[in-house]
Amino acid sequence: MRRAHRIAAITKTLVERPHHVFSVGEFADLFGVARSTLSEDLAIIRQTCETLEMGKIETIPGAVGGVRYLPLLTKEQALSHVEAICQRLRDPQRILAGGFIYMEDLTSSHELLRPIGSIFATAFGDRDPEYVVTVETAGIPVALQVAQALDLPLVVVRRQSRPTEGPVLTMNFLSGSARNVETMSLSRRALPQGSRVLLIDDFMKAGGTLRGLSDLMREFECTVVGKGVLIEGGWPDEKLIHDHLSLIYLQEVDIKEQKVVVQPADWITA
Amino acid sequence: MRRAHRIAAITKTLVERPHHVFSVGEFADLFGVARSTLSEDLAIIRQTCETLEMGKIETIPGAVGGVRYLPLLTKEQALSHVEAICQRLRDPQRILAGGFIYMEDLTSSHELLRPIGSIFATAFGDRDPEYVVTVETAGIPVALQVAQALDLPLVVVRRQSRPTEGPVLTMNFLSGSARNVETMSLSRRALPQGSRVLLIDDFMKAGGTLRGLSDLMREFECTVVGKGVLIEGGWPDEKLIHDHLSLIYLQEVDIKEQKVVVQPADWITA
Repeated sequence: MRRAHRIAAITKTLVERPHHVFSVGEFADLFGVARSTLSEDLAIIRQTCETLEMGKIETIPGAVGGVRYLPLLTKEQALSHVEAICQRLRDPQRILAGGFIYMEDLTSSHELLRPIGSIFATAFGDRDPEYVVTVETAGIPVALQVAQALDLPLVVVRRQSRPTEGPVLTMNFLSGSARNVETMSLSRRALPQGSRVLLIDDFMKAGGTLRGLSDLMREFECTVVGKGVLIEGGWPDEKLIHDHLSLIYLQEVDIKEQKVVVQPADWITA
Repeated sequence: MRRAHRIAAITKTLVERPHHVFSVGEFADLFGVARSTLSEDLAIIRQTCETLEMGKIETIPGAVGGVRYLPLLTKEQALSHVEAICQRLRDPQRILAGGFIYMEDLTSSHELLRPIGSIFATAFGDRDPEYVVTVETAGIPVALQVAQALDLPLVVVRRQSRPTEGPVLTMNFLSGSARNVETMSLSRRALPQGSRVLLIDDFMKAGGTLRGLSDLMREFECTVVGKGVLIEGGWPDEKLIHDHLSLIYLQEVDIKEQKVVVQPADWITA
């Protein structure tokens, strides 16, 4: 196999599984070349990613010797992906009775969410999370993309427990917006004690769900290393959490003027 | 940019978004090379994928001129991925009270499910589905991987409708195993009339849910072009649907012997 062929095969393997560490020695064996030759191959891929701002190839030195692809996005790239979702949200045909916005098509689109996974991976990757945790239902696709970008397992907290979960820990929490008492539950097996978890949800108003999730994590003796939200509503003013990272700020739905006021979060445009 | 660099960049772009058609002309413009040079680059990537059985690079001829990556798996590769999940399911520690099996960690693992997405894409890709449809909750991660492998939008049918969905079509259906009347609902906006849909679920016993989903699709005047199931239970004997494709056959959970009898479906091992 010539260099060009090796580069195609290595690039495919790395990109298909971001954040996963592959052994340089195994690549060398697979192609029957010296490690020095393989290092040159990797240097070309690394240089291409740098030049075209297509993420980063990271080499892990040492006896084991590994390499991985990090799907890092520049601020401009992040902004352009987030702005694309904002643009879709601004369509007045999305306005529903009661001032709700139809967004089911957006929050389950792999095309829109893959880059969102990369944005959260860029933001939270260096906090070394071990699990991505979300709550059913609409948060699952975005959380899965984050888990995929970080090569981590996904844990889905349920609203109602199921017999297939075994013993569960169930908790009541106060939804901040509707001021209802709601329930969430998670299998005792789902998370090992002492894990570092990254909480991801698709939408947040007051933040009651994310606060409930944080409390649940404390019951599992896990450490929350970050909280990411795709879309944050501008109301109510008072939020129940403050240390989260939102990507999109949905300020207002003006039913009379048929206008959706939505924009990328300040930290992205800054 | 030299050939090796172009090959890294093109491979990354194609693999990151399977089934999506990219314009050959745009690649040529991006790198400032002639289309004939770019065709040679693509030939090298195509040849590498063939030699290493890493899927397929497909060139679409004509004035537009496109290229895409299909994540096709060989039968041996499919079997090895499916067998890996079976292996995990055989762990007697997964047996729960009542003969249930704990599988939440498997049905939300991007690592295990990405190849599953490719298997279903290989099986159903040529039926030209336009949407992947599943029902909340546990089916979502596997369905999202199928949607990603086929570059299609995902539609999630709800057990209970939400105000953010707008007008919904709600339907009762008979769960085949528990013989309960259950409900599913889908936003009127979620699926255009006349669409070709691929149904995907994580687990099936009698098939009541998939039959309900098929009925719901008829109400939306959509055509079901395929039904894919990750794990099919061996009981009850009598199934409510017959034209589905299962990957894993869970024959029996022997509580007394603490044994899970599970194997890849016949069509994969044949």
